[in-house]
Amino acid sequence: MRHITLMTDFGLKYTAVAVMRGVIYNLAPDVVISDISHAISPQNVMEGALALGWVTPYFPDGTVHIAVVDPGVGTQRRPMAARLGRHYFVGPDNGLFSVVIENAEKQGLKMEFVHLNRPQFWLPQVSTTFHGRDIFSPAGAHLASGIPLEDLGDRFEDPVRLDMPRPRKTASGWETAIINIDSFGNLYTPLHKDQIGSSREVRVRVSGREINGLVKTFGERPPGDLVALIDAADFLSISIVNGSAARELNAHVGDTVEVILS
Amino acid sequence: MRHITLMTDFGLKYTAVAVMRGVIYNLAPDVVISDISHAISPQNVMEGALALGWVTPYFPDGTVHIAVVDPGVGTQRRPMAARLGRHYFVGPDNGLFSVVIENAEKQGLKMEFVHLNRPQFWLPQVSTTFHGRDIFSPAGAHLASGIPLEDLGDRFEDPVRLDMPRPRKTASGWETAIINIDSFGNLYTPLHKDQIGSSREVRVRVSGREINGLVKTFGERPPGDLVALIDAADFLSISIVNGSAARELNAHVGDTVEVILS
Amino acid sequence: MRHITLMTDFGLKYTAVAVMRGVIYNLAPDVVISDISHAISPQNVMEGALALGWVTPYFPDGTVHIAVVDPGVGTQRRPMAARLGRHYFVGPDNGLFSVVIENAEKQGLKMEFVHLNRPQFWLPQVSTTFHGRDIFSPAGAHLASGIPLEDLGDRFEDPVRLDMPRPRKTASGWETAIINIDSFGNLYTPLHKDQIGSSREVRVRVSGREINGLVKTFGERPPGDLVALIDAADFLSISIVNGSAARELNAHVGDTVEVILS
Repeated sequence: MRHITLMTDFGLKYTAVAVMRGVIYNLAPDVVISDISHAISPQNVMEGALALGWVTPYFPDGTVHIAVVDPGVGTQRRPMAARLGRHYFVGPDNGLFSVVIENAEKQGLKMEFVHLNRPQFWLPQVSTTFHGRDIFSPAGAHLASGIPLEDLGDRFEDPVRLDMPRPRKTASGWETAIINIDSFGNLYTPLHKDQIGSSREVRVRVSGREINGLVKTFGERPPGDLVALIDAADFLSISIVNGSAARELNAHVGDTVEVILS
Repeated sequence: MRHITLMTDFGLKYTAVAVMRGVIYNLAPDVVISDISHAISPQNVMEGALALGWVTPYFPDGTVHIAVVDPGVGTQRRPMAARLGRHYFVGPDNGLFSVVIENAEKQGLKMEFVHLNRPQFWLPQVSTTFHGRDIFSPAGAHLASGIPLEDLGDRFEDPVRLDMPRPRKTASGWETAIINIDSFGNLYTPLHKDQIGSSREVRVRVSGREINGLVKTFGERPPGDLVALIDAADFLSISIVNGSAARELNAHVGDTVEVILS
Repeated sequence: MRHITLMTDFGLKYTAVAVMRGVIYNLAPDVVISDISHAISPQNVMEGALALGWVTPYFPDGTVHIAVVDPGVGTQRRPMAARLGRHYFVGPDNGLFSVVIENAEKQGLKMEFVHLNRPQFWLPQVSTTFHGRDIFSPAGAHLASGIPLEDLGDRFEDPVRLDMPRPRKTASGWETAIINIDSFGNLYTPLHKDQIGSSREVRVRVSGREINGLVKTFGERPPGDLVALIDAADFLSISIVNGSAARELNAHVGDTVEVILS
C-alpha cells in the first residue's frame, strides 16, 4: 500500500502539484508518487472521471489515487475517500469517481465511501481554495501509511454520479458521441468493442464523413487516411494516420458519431 | 535528508532535466527526486524565487532543493549552496533564493552560505552553459548523501537579494502589484492577509475595475464574476469564477493593484 | 539494475505514460522511474534517437531505458530489447536506438539485441496500438527485476539504423544542418567541437546571416545578439542571447549551416 497517484487540472506550471507532493512526503516519506495527469482541462470533471477509469486499474493493489478536479472547492460538496476493491480513491465528491465506481459495480467489487470530516487527519489550517493540499493529500498519505479508511470520516452510501454519455441503440446500429480528444487529435467514443461485436460490415459517420470498416492498426493505411479502430482501452476511436482527426474534421467533444452495422 | 527537489526554466521538453536526474542518481542512487516546476518563464529569476518561497516549506526537513534559473551561467556569478534552517538550497547566486532567505530571516532560522568553488565536488568536466548538470546536481547529490555543506566550498555572507515588490501603505489602504499569474489566469499580489486585517470593508481596484469585498471561496459567486480573495498562501489574489482574470482584464505582472480599507 | 527511464512522443496529457508506469510498478514495485521526455515531436524517430543519445549516458549502470516513438506500431516492425555496455534499451526496432548504438560502437562496448517475441513476457492481451503498455513496459520491468535479456526473445544482429545527418567537409570548412531546436529556440547541429578544433577564426552561416567567432557563454554578449557556441553536449549550436534564434531567423530542422574555418 505504498504507491500514490496524483491527478489534477492544475496545469503544467506544476507548483501546486509540488506542494501536494511535499505534504505527502512529510507524512509518508517512503511512498512512491506517480502522476496520472495534471493537464485535465480546467474543471472538466467528466474528463477527469474518464482518465481515472482508464489509468488506475494498471496500478498495483493498494494504490491510493488522489484526484483533484474541483470547481466546487470551499462549498458544501463533500471531501471523500473510497475503497473500491483493492484500490483507494481520495478527492471531491462531485462525480470525479463516477467511472471507477461504475467499473467496480460491474466487477462486483466491495465499495466503501467515507466523508472526510475529521480535522485531525487534515493539515492544521484548511484554506477554502486548496483542499488538494489541506485535506486530500494528508488523507491519501494517511491511507498509504496504513490508517484504516473508516478512521478518516463517517461512512456514506450515495457518492455523486455523473450522467455518463452512453451509446444509444438505433435501427441500424448505434448513435454515440466523441467524449475525449487526445494530443494527437484522435477522437474517443464510449462505444465498446463488444457492442460492435463481429458485424461483417461497420460504417462510422462523424462530421459529415463516412468511414468504411475498422482497421486493426494505423499501419494498414497510408498517411492522411481517416480510419476507425478499437483503441487500447477497447472502445471505438477515430484517427487520421500520421495526422490529427480533430483538426481535419474540426471535431469537438460532444459531436455525434453514428455507427451502422450490417 | 534523502529528498531532492528540482526547479528550472528548462521547459517541458524536459531532456536537460532528465540529464540532471541521471547525474543525481549516479551519485546518490537512493534519493527521491520531486519536480517543483520546469515551466518557470525563461530566465525569470523573480518568478523562480516566488515559486521556491511558496513550495519548498511543504517538503520534509533535510530536503535539498536544486534550482536553476540562471541567465548568467558561465559568467562571474557564484554557484552557491545554502542551509536555511533544516532545508538545503543549491543554485546560482543571482537572487533566486531571495524569498526563502527572507522567510528564513523572519523565522530567525540559522543560515549558512557557501560558494561552490571546489571542483572535486563537480562533474570532471564543467561546461560554460549547463551548471545545472556539472555543478548544481553533483552538489545537491553530495548534500543528500550526507557530505557537510561546509565541505563544498568557502563560506560567504552576502548572497544576492532581489528587490522584492512590497505593498506600499497609502492614506486609504495599500498600493501593490500583480507579481504572478497562473495557468488559470488568477492574479497574485504580495499583500498578506495580516496587512488587510479585519477591515470591515475592502475594495480592490485593478485594470480600471473595482471589486467590493473579499469572497471566502469561488463557490460564493456565479461563473463570470470578478472576485478578490485570500489565496492558499495567505496573500490577496484576484480571480474570475470559472474564468481567466488575466484574459478578461488584460492584466500583466507589474500592473498596479489598489486596496481601499475602511 | 533498479532504475528505469521512459521516453515517448505521447505528449503532456500524460495518461498513456501513467498507464505504462502502472504496468511497470505492478511487475517491479521497487524500481525508480524517471522521465526523459514525453514531448518528442509526434512520430519523430530522429528526434527521439538524438534525445536518447544525449540523456541516457548520465544514468547509472544497469538502467533500463524504455523508449516509444513508434509510427509503425502494430505492423511488422520488430519489438526489441538491447544491452549496450551496461545499459538496457527497450522499444520498437525502427531506428530509435541508432544514436546509442553508434555511440556504443565508437566506445567498443559489447552489444546484444533480442526480438521481443515471447508472449509469456508481455501483458496477457496485446493491442495493435499500444505496445508501450503491452510489450515494452513488461519487458523493461522484467529486465529491471533481473530476468536475463536473452530470455526475452531470439537474438538478432541487424537493428534498423537511421541515416544520421553527418557534417560534410568542404574546401573552407564544413557544411552541416540544424538537427534539433529546443524550447528556448536554440539551434543544434551535429558538428562536434573536435571537427572545429583550434581554428583561429570560425564563421558560421545560417539563414542568410553570418556569425563571427564562437562565444564561450551567453554572458559575453548583450541580449539580442546572435551567437554560435559549443553546447553542453560538445556540438556546435546557434542562439540569440535572451531570445529565440529559431523565431528570429525563421529557422527549421534541416536548414543548412555552413562553417568556415581559417
